[in-house]
Amino acid sequence: MASDGFRTLDEKSLVEYIKATPSLSSKLGNNLEDLQIKEVGDGNLNFVFIVIGPSGSVVIKQALPYIRCIGESWPMTTERAYFEASTLKEHGHLCPDHVPEVYHFDRTMCLIGMRYIEPPHIILRKGLIAGIEYPLLAEHISEYMARTLFYTSLLYRSTTKHKRAVAEYCGNVELCRHTAQVVFSDPYKVSQYNQWTSPYLDSDAEAVRTDNILKLEVAELKSIFCERAQALVHGDLHTGSVMVTHDSTQVIDPEFGFYGPMGFDVGAFLGNLILAYFAQDGHADEGNDRKVYKEWILKTIVETWNLFHKKFIVLWDEHRDGSGEAYLPDIYNNPELQLLVKQKYMKDLFHDTLGFGAAKMIRRIVGVAHVEDFESITDAAKRADCERQALSFAKMLLKERRKFEAITDVISSIQHLHS
Amino acid sequence: MASDGFRTLDEKSLVEYIKATPSLSSKLGNNLEDLQIKEVGDGNLNFVFIVIGPSGSVVIKQALPYIRCIGESWPMTTERAYFEASTLKEHGHLCPDHVPEVYHFDRTMCLIGMRYIEPPHIILRKGLIAGIEYPLLAEHISEYMARTLFYTSLLYRSTTKHKRAVAEYCGNVELCRHTAQVVFSDPYKVSQYNQWTSPYLDSDAEAVRTDNILKLEVAELKSIFCERAQALVHGDLHTGSVMVTHDSTQVIDPEFGFYGPMGFDVGAFLGNLILAYFAQDGHADEGNDRKVYKEWILKTIVETWNLFHKKFIVLWDEHRDGSGEAYLPDIYNNPELQLLVKQKYMKDLFHDTLGFGAAKMIRRIVGVAHVEDFESITDAAKRADCERQALSFAKMLLKERRKFEAITDVISSIQHLHS
Repeated sequence: MASDGFRTLDEKSLVEYIKATPSLSSKLGNNLEDLQIKEVGDGNLNFVFIVIGPSGSVVIKQALPYIRCIGESWPMTTERAYFEASTLKEHGHLCPDHVPEVYHFDRTMCLIGMRYIEPPHIILRKGLIAGIEYPLLAEHISEYMARTLFYTSLLYRSTTKHKRAVAEYCGNVELCRHTAQVVFSDPYKVSQYNQWTSPYLDSDAEAVRTDNILKLEVAELKSIFCERAQALVHGDLHTGSVMVTHDSTQVIDPEFGFYGPMGFDVGAFLGNLILAYFAQDGHADEGNDRKVYKEWILKTIVETWNLFHKKFIVLWDEHRDGSGEAYLPDIYNNPELQLLVKQKYMKDLFHDTLGFGAAKMIRRIVGVAHVEDFESITDAAKRADCERQALSFAKMLLKERRKFEAITDVISSIQHLHS
Repeated sequence: MASDGFRTLDEKSLVEYIKATPSLSSKLGNNLEDLQIKEVGDGNLNFVFIVIGPSGSVVIKQALPYIRCIGESWPMTTERAYFEASTLKEHGHLCPDHVPEVYHFDRTMCLIGMRYIEPPHIILRKGLIAGIEYPLLAEHISEYMARTLFYTSLLYRSTTKHKRAVAEYCGNVELCRHTAQVVFSDPYKVSQYNQWTSPYLDSDAEAVRTDNILKLEVAELKSIFCERAQALVHGDLHTGSVMVTHDSTQVIDPEFGFYGPMGFDVGAFLGNLILAYFAQDGHADEGNDRKVYKEWILKTIVETWNLFHKKFIVLWDEHRDGSGEAYLPDIYNNPELQLLVKQKYMKDLFHDTLGFGAAKMIRRIVGVAHVEDFESITDAAKRADCERQALSFAKMLLKERRKFEAITDVISSIQHLHS
């Protein structure tokens, strides 16, 4: 709930706010009469203002007490701004190259002032729709995921620090509850919020709601999501939460941040790349059949997982004599056991990743919030074909995830389905 | 750490304390000059006073800021008294027949006043050593476990209530950390605190420390223990935490209470029954070969699990249209899926139970704190034989737990090893 003193800012009142706030005004220059302000929030939950001054810029993000796209009928705590700011700071500390700096946080106003991720940065999802290759994406995002997840887990942290942090982020329960509903529940039942490309996918949506094995598996993932405090996850790491250029990758919007399963982040990212892949046929035209681009997406999926795996293990090796309490050196320091332990940990994380990735794909096709990758395909029949392939693959992946041993097996399976 | 105002009570100062505390004095009667007071703490962490007055009795338990049996060299937060009182109240509310009533809690003094579990109640472990059958034990303890674990899980609770409770019990981190150390770590490395029946078990203790597969498996259990907030567990549910008569079963000492895996409680209880079983040959004498009693223990193990399973499912069925958010009725209300979901949940819980039970057995043979079941066998060679059998079974159970499908398979395995 909004605290006393909260008021929604518009462009005019924002200027007054900035003038009264040195940590923001100092970023913009001396003359604050000529600020350029643009509201650009295309998300569902917030106002986002880009503010450009004579000698600098900031982004101001203000959380609203409801889900913006649905309106005041779906309330949503503004305390999420606190958890977004906390997660940005924590992840930014761990991975400053890929997380925007926070300049200012105002808990009463549910307001974060942070670095403006300037053009030519665009939302990764839009780049994927446009067919743009990002040669450093896998390198960067794997670095972000490996560092943020490793350093906030018991592989690095003491139990004492871990439990303290877990307790604090339990406060972000409303957003966790929202995720649990839209990812793990609504797609599997009749819900007023669900939507799909009708009538083409009517029977596909019904098949999801009547697939007992799928529902059994998604229950297991939901329970891991709700109960397992493995690391401080971003909580919403789809391709709309990443801004990119050819040289830069910036992860934004961690308002769903909480202590949860690592695979929820890695799966969100990979699952959304797979959605982007299945949408490509809808974006193909005479000038570009997207075949080369589809290969690039698949290669990026492989590289993202493999680099994540590699970087995560490097961090583990670097800190294996550190304060992390999961695998004490006195017990686990023989090379053979080190190998066994890591293989098991990464295999479990891989299967979690595939499960969560698949669940995130399914909900984007038959749940409340869809993705522009598909929505931008104007021919409904063609869109439905793309979505049906993605849905079919995701259902198989969710059910059969434990049979996959390497990310290349996942790619083979995509290609096989899609050929 | 002890708060300001904390002072250790002795029998004299305790009388003054009681006189000044109506919630205690009212239980004892009008004339408080003739109180009988006896300090009976045989645990490692607390002073326990039995106070008998003219018209009633109470137990006063005061937590000390260190582990009593080791001395001030192993500090231990007195905040555990708060979590003990909270868990007693919560579990007592859920299962009043098997949890002593709390009359008074003083956070500053780390002091709980509660029902005196009067004679002929004795500690269950002592009854098992004496060879006494408790015909209602399985019925009662299964009731306690089913009710406390079910009602504090997401099968009954909303996510909101669950996360709030999880956050609060994160504060009991020092005791969780202590458990993690003595159960999941110390037995698997050289530690000054470890002990075993030497020289007989020297090579057995070393074998535990060099068994890579065992260490791999125990790491998985440790991670579940540290990360998975499934339900409010007692946290130390061995046979020394249960007081019994032929008709009554009372669970005491939940100072290790926290949101953890259900299998940690169920496993602790069953694992300690298995220890009691393997100790029986050490207690046999000409008058009693303990064969019939051993059969009773095995029967009690089977009944405890099977009744727990049955009661847990009954609670689940009763509340399947309730506020629990794990399995929403709109998704899971078809009979075939209900069956699948329950089978999977209970199978996973069974395997967790066997794993945690085995880990708790191992640590009682080669770790810091041993059990009287074995310690009371004065012939060291005979004791070592009993312990070696128990250790051998526990190691197998920890590694092979996923192969067991029913509790009767576990019993067969015990009998096979022991024949």
